[in-house]
Amino acid sequence: MATAPSVSYSMTVRLEVPASGTAVSQLTTAVESSGGSVTGLDVTASGHEKLRIDVTIAATSTAHADEIVEKLRGIEGVSLGKVSDRTFLMHLGGKIEMASKHPIRNRDDLSMIYTPGVARVCMAIAENPEDARRLTIKRNTVAVVTDGSAVLGLGNIGPMAAMPVMEGKAALFKRFADIDAWPICLDTQDPDEIVAAVKAIAPGFAGINLEDISAPRCFEIEARLREALDIPVFHDDQHGTAIVVLAALTNALRVVGKAVGDVKVVMSGAGAAGTAILKLLLAAGVKNAVSADIHGVVHADRPDLVDAAADSPLRWIADNTNPEGYTGTLKEAVVGADVFIGVSAPNVLSGEDVAAMAEGAIVFALANPDPEVDPAVARQTAAVVATGRSDFPNQINNVLVFPGVFRGLLDAQSRTVNTEMMLAAASALADVVGEDELNANYIIPSVFNDKVAGAVAGAVRKAAAGA
Amino acid sequence: MATAPSVSYSMTVRLEVPASGTAVSQLTTAVESSGGSVTGLDVTASGHEKLRIDVTIAATSTAHADEIVEKLRGIEGVSLGKVSDRTFLMHLGGKIEMASKHPIRNRDDLSMIYTPGVARVCMAIAENPEDARRLTIKRNTVAVVTDGSAVLGLGNIGPMAAMPVMEGKAALFKRFADIDAWPICLDTQDPDEIVAAVKAIAPGFAGINLEDISAPRCFEIEARLREALDIPVFHDDQHGTAIVVLAALTNALRVVGKAVGDVKVVMSGAGAAGTAILKLLLAAGVKNAVSADIHGVVHADRPDLVDAAADSPLRWIADNTNPEGYTGTLKEAVVGADVFIGVSAPNVLSGEDVAAMAEGAIVFALANPDPEVDPAVARQTAAVVATGRSDFPNQINNVLVFPGVFRGLLDAQSRTVNTEMMLAAASALADVVGEDELNANYIIPSVFNDKVAGAVAGAVRKAAAGA
Repeated sequence: MATAPSVSYSMTVRLEVPASGTAVSQLTTAVESSGGSVTGLDVTASGHEKLRIDVTIAATSTAHADEIVEKLRGIEGVSLGKVSDRTFLMHLGGKIEMASKHPIRNRDDLSMIYTPGVARVCMAIAENPEDARRLTIKRNTVAVVTDGSAVLGLGNIGPMAAMPVMEGKAALFKRFADIDAWPICLDTQDPDEIVAAVKAIAPGFAGINLEDISAPRCFEIEARLREALDIPVFHDDQHGTAIVVLAALTNALRVVGKAVGDVKVVMSGAGAAGTAILKLLLAAGVKNAVSADIHGVVHADRPDLVDAAADSPLRWIADNTNPEGYTGTLKEAVVGADVFIGVSAPNVLSGEDVAAMAEGAIVFALANPDPEVDPAVARQTAAVVATGRSDFPNQINNVLVFPGVFRGLLDAQSRTVNTEMMLAAASALADVVGEDELNANYIIPSVFNDKVAGAVAGAVRKAAAGA
Repeated sequence: MATAPSVSYSMTVRLEVPASGTAVSQLTTAVESSGGSVTGLDVTASGHEKLRIDVTIAATSTAHADEIVEKLRGIEGVSLGKVSDRTFLMHLGGKIEMASKHPIRNRDDLSMIYTPGVARVCMAIAENPEDARRLTIKRNTVAVVTDGSAVLGLGNIGPMAAMPVMEGKAALFKRFADIDAWPICLDTQDPDEIVAAVKAIAPGFAGINLEDISAPRCFEIEARLREALDIPVFHDDQHGTAIVVLAALTNALRVVGKAVGDVKVVMSGAGAAGTAILKLLLAAGVKNAVSADIHGVVHADRPDLVDAAADSPLRWIADNTNPEGYTGTLKEAVVGADVFIGVSAPNVLSGEDVAAMAEGAIVFALANPDPEVDPAVARQTAAVVATGRSDFPNQINNVLVFPGVFRGLLDAQSRTVNTEMMLAAASALADVVGEDELNANYIIPSVFNDKVAGAVAGAVRKAAAGA
């Protein structure tokens, strides 16, 4: 797959160019002949002899960006100034801030916002702790918690390097659901210490969004925190992904006219996301699911599972899936399958594998940035294809889910989040795509569809109110 | 001391009043005859028969406010509507929020602020962790950490009830020093667990402001965190108070024309603030200090100290103060003293005690809301009097210190905070009061003096750069 130039590899190059001659026109040609694209060209100073031009360029990678800059440098008469990376510029000083809701102009303001007035508010909460949800930010706060052990596809880069993702997530919470989230990047990867730290900071928050914590530790951490806390704990990499996959699958099945209880689903990947997807699909009515990991299809007699602990995640999968008793490879399992869902690694399936699936096949190849099968190839035989990428139709993106889910939980002042709420969220998300809009290339709304967060929030709030 | 009506006990009362007759004019009279004051009177609807009026009233206490409302209810023809407490209204939903610095309008914004662009920023930090101070909010963040064990003068009200204070503190950090602070209210009062939790959350912050943690646990917690962390840890109740007291004392000594090395200082209170003030005064050159607590003057032979551990805070005081070997009461110790500093309890000194101090006596009676001695009485014989209250001259208020101190620490990217930086902060704060402004009723600037935070920050930054 060739990658298109992307704004995420975007830079602004300052150039001095002779005012006469062909240098200016050569700039765009040079960028485009290198496979980049010019997204902006501003003359920022002009004289009789020289122009100063800021050219904004999208490239496909850092190396590609460097290559384009060299090409520009080579044009006769052009001298190169500052090269600014737009993504880095946006990150300078961080992406979020704390803001005060009220001005503090004078002594009167101070005496209500701080001492002595604040003391009465404190005493009201001391007498009735539930008032914290009325009189403090606990009404609307979510901690975005990570240990930096599994950040995006970058692996264990640690808590400090995870900050930009957590800040971005906080910004998305605000943008899509008006939630006040704050990043909490933990300087420990020990489950006991993570659980203790999150328990300790919980009083100031109405919800915990766990993020980018590696499997299998994430299962234990989430389970222990749910047990310990009276606010909802939601590992987005698991449940956010599961909800958006279920929503997309719901609509994909509508497109191909199959019922959820009738299809055979084959999954690649049994990590955090894979396990959560599987559990939610079973809860939604899938009866025939087969899960494969790097060692092949999961079944009870697989050597590495025979002695596995009864509560191990893989053991759970073996006990609850694979009713037909497959023991072979992923490629063997997908033959005749109705649905393939990959949350694993690039290129585990070929076009032939997809062609061997049942008629009306549905392929969700979600590995990022390189999917389990080239979506263009898959689309030659499959009826519906989705990926995690933004440059193909049907992007499976958690941004569709976590803002609305937490909005609903917070509005309901929910102390927990459960499977019913997640099923409600998936159903509401699927229904944002109207019957008249639904087709193989539009099974899931855009992240900028402004109906999404409200629909998801409403469904979750309703489910939580009944919980 | 009579207390004046305060906006911190301020409410808005909605009334329906006959349009004709004297009822309207009786409203103000009724409030003022009850000892309250009318701070606003708005006619919000008017008809031929009736007026709807919102009267905003300042009272001296909650009970007083109730009394005023009853008085209003008693006026003939007046019917009472909603009574709104302005301080509580300001707290609805909390006082602070998270804000995004950049709009997220479209896919391009999303791909730079979040995935996939953010991945490159993460990798840059993974390769060079110091870049976190450039590319994340760590450049400008402070955690305001409490366990709720000693909140204002309210005692151990717990972490949830402490939230309004910590939110207020965060709002002040922003208002006075453009710092992004976030409240972290801990669900534990165990020093080991507090230390572990703060260590765990440290990666996302450039400084830790400990707040309202009771003594003696606060000493241990601060010392252990300073040892463990590479960001400054500052217990504001200790050091913020100490810095503002030293600044005020510096100017008070200028007023009376005495040198810091020559005066005898007597202190009442050996808790968190008292101990920190004492240590900073000694570092500033005070040679003769005597400290008293509820059991009298601290000296090495006091029964409760004979067997005290060598590292106990009181033992440290006994070993480093009281060069003349006082063994009696506070009242005995203040005879002939130049300076009295109280951070203890109401009314421990009388006017006679102050009269028995040396000529040009300086009295800082900082217990809140009721000082160690009535400041009006003290002022009859003392040359300079300061309190913690906003309704007397010379308010000793930490708001003068903590924003500037952290601004300086953050600007210097300091990994620590030490005595030299605190002395520099105190000196800079004292010098904000110009020679031509200085007098017995103006030894410390107002919290709204806009030179304060910058002066303190500059001094701390300079001291930190040399550290």
